[in-house]
Amino acid sequence: MSEKIVYMDYASSSRVDPRVVEAMLPYLRELYGNPSSQHSVGSKMKGALEEARAKVAALINAEKPSEVVLTSGATEGTNVALRGVALRNRDRGNHIIASKIEHISVLNTLKYLAKNGFEVTYLPVDRYGTVDVEALKSTITDKTTLVTVGYANNEVGTIQPIREMAEIAHSKKAYLHTDAVPAVGKIPVDVVKDGIDLMTISSWDMYGPYGIGGIYVKRGTRVEPLILGGGQEGGLRSGTENVAGAVGMGKAAELAMAEMAGDAERLSKIRDRIVERVLKEVPYSFLNGHPTRRLPHNANIRFSFVEGESLVLSLDMEGIMLSSGSACSSKTLEPSHVLIAMGIPHVEAQGSLLISLGRFNVPEDADRIADVLPRIIKGLRQMSPIAPEEVR
Amino acid sequence: MSEKIVYMDYASSSRVDPRVVEAMLPYLRELYGNPSSQHSVGSKMKGALEEARAKVAALINAEKPSEVVLTSGATEGTNVALRGVALRNRDRGNHIIASKIEHISVLNTLKYLAKNGFEVTYLPVDRYGTVDVEALKSTITDKTTLVTVGYANNEVGTIQPIREMAEIAHSKKAYLHTDAVPAVGKIPVDVVKDGIDLMTISSWDMYGPYGIGGIYVKRGTRVEPLILGGGQEGGLRSGTENVAGAVGMGKAAELAMAEMAGDAERLSKIRDRIVERVLKEVPYSFLNGHPTRRLPHNANIRFSFVEGESLVLSLDMEGIMLSSGSACSSKTLEPSHVLIAMGIPHVEAQGSLLISLGRFNVPEDADRIADVLPRIIKGLRQMSPIAPEEVR
Repeated sequence: MSEKIVYMDYASSSRVDPRVVEAMLPYLRELYGNPSSQHSVGSKMKGALEEARAKVAALINAEKPSEVVLTSGATEGTNVALRGVALRNRDRGNHIIASKIEHISVLNTLKYLAKNGFEVTYLPVDRYGTVDVEALKSTITDKTTLVTVGYANNEVGTIQPIREMAEIAHSKKAYLHTDAVPAVGKIPVDVVKDGIDLMTISSWDMYGPYGIGGIYVKRGTRVEPLILGGGQEGGLRSGTENVAGAVGMGKAAELAMAEMAGDAERLSKIRDRIVERVLKEVPYSFLNGHPTRRLPHNANIRFSFVEGESLVLSLDMEGIMLSSGSACSSKTLEPSHVLIAMGIPHVEAQGSLLISLGRFNVPEDADRIADVLPRIIKGLRQMSPIAPEEVR
Repeated sequence: MSEKIVYMDYASSSRVDPRVVEAMLPYLRELYGNPSSQHSVGSKMKGALEEARAKVAALINAEKPSEVVLTSGATEGTNVALRGVALRNRDRGNHIIASKIEHISVLNTLKYLAKNGFEVTYLPVDRYGTVDVEALKSTITDKTTLVTVGYANNEVGTIQPIREMAEIAHSKKAYLHTDAVPAVGKIPVDVVKDGIDLMTISSWDMYGPYGIGGIYVKRGTRVEPLILGGGQEGGLRSGTENVAGAVGMGKAAELAMAEMAGDAERLSKIRDRIVERVLKEVPYSFLNGHPTRRLPHNANIRFSFVEGESLVLSLDMEGIMLSSGSACSSKTLEPSHVLIAMGIPHVEAQGSLLISLGRFNVPEDADRIADVLPRIIKGLRQMSPIAPEEVR
């Protein structure tokens, strides 16, 4: 395989932006010190940490930098937000509402809470993956303390009506949490305008380093910490701060603010070309997710009579890296719970390909995949016992 | 201040070893991919992750690399170990035993457990900070599921009789957890020989990167996860893996294995020269902690009639960076709970200086601090209302 690798799996893992790495290097190579220390070496680190926090706060339009709590990543952020709000507000109620298509970190945290005395209602979605707002209205009660719906789905790309759901949540004095990992840095997210109380943010999903992330926690929100110790991050997240990581995440946020619009325009053109060519050139292929209200860098295409894993391996042999189904639970080989919730039959759901583009894709990448897919799909269908004669 | 900064606060924060940074750079600059992905870019990352894990396992002599669970750092590791064992083994008992001189992450996690139906017994220590093994024997019961004692104290450096305590714990079928953050990579720690069931490990404390750490969990130990999601790290710690961080921690472990003995010899000489000169040249100065059974890079010196914070600030002005009292809760300005537990009166405890050396200290550093301390202490005592005439 002499050709350059084409990576279209940014929902699973992203390259760190080289400018982010450059910003981090002094904090890996020369600078050190504990931001909590009393001496001057420590206070310099404190300054760097707070500058980074302010950049993340600016990206999401938080009113105060202190509303951004740095964690070790999005999964921890979601765990803190959901458990922290549920447990801290148990005196007000034990009911939580989520959608059926949440990320596995949300779903597994809710499963834990359900085992520990909480009641969880899962909202259905329509065939495009849009959460049913009417169902939220009819299931929310005075006992509901938390509504959690992802800002945009990380598999099918559908963007949710968060502002509307926040209003409904607030009408019953419930908090609105949103896992905004696939959205922050890719499309404008404004916590004030959208009425968000808590929001999970990732660093690597916006080309920052791994091992760091955050939660936006609106001032005054009642939430308890998950990780206890020295009381860092305003008491909400203990542990010696990862200053190099924070600086990297801050730089990533700064770059996202400046380049988000341009990236979105560029990537949506590549994405649109892939979708257009594939849907035209491959029979029985369909776009999963909302046709227009979707993330600019995401396409999720379903191929009848094909098995997703074989498709991923065939593309791998062509030097093209992608995921089938859910990017984050692809270990299980179960069909995506998101596609199932959208009403797609099991066997069809399994033949889906998640194309998630990123800042380092180039226009030529579109044709690289569009050129090989018809042949690969045809080959796989020839081996399928269920494929009709005309597509073999 | 034109002189080079002398950093003696390695218990608060450490420089990352340049060789560690070099090892990490390819994983920051070129390599990316999710270790759980099915494609070949992902599996390369999986390989790097497992290689790093094996290096950490080798350093502590774990039987299997999979017994090392990577976390975001030591604080998270301790939270998982303590809460995970307590909750998972509640059917066997609700009693936990700790020492009074544990790290704040241990103490605050135990406080949380005590609020949630667990009973915690705190073992006393003697005047050298050695945990009372007889007290463990007399307080352990069939309801005890966990004994947690730090391998070596991060403030006073005293090394604990862990093996003996593990035997006592096991005689009642309780697990032995040890926070070994100040010890791993500095002195030989062998989980098999010492009979350790769970152990907290830090990366930055052994010159690795921040934002990563781990727990050793002996195979077969009943423990439940704290952070839920995609089921990474054998289900014990969800979240996209920080491969660059893991590679750095692995490299740090490899370097520690090779250089631990040499570092210890070199640093203990610097430390001994500081202690010898200071105790001789400064009246009313005393070594806190055990005179011989202590970490090679640690000295904790108490000066009567002096206030620790002023001492830290005075040394800072001389370009010497140190901590007073506890390195990790120095924000609070409370006298160290470790020194109090050792029977040192409040006012005396507050005049303590924590000298924690690291790989990048040089022999000349000893005289840098020993040369200035007598004058600084004298100056501070002149302003003290309680200092006797002869030391002013």
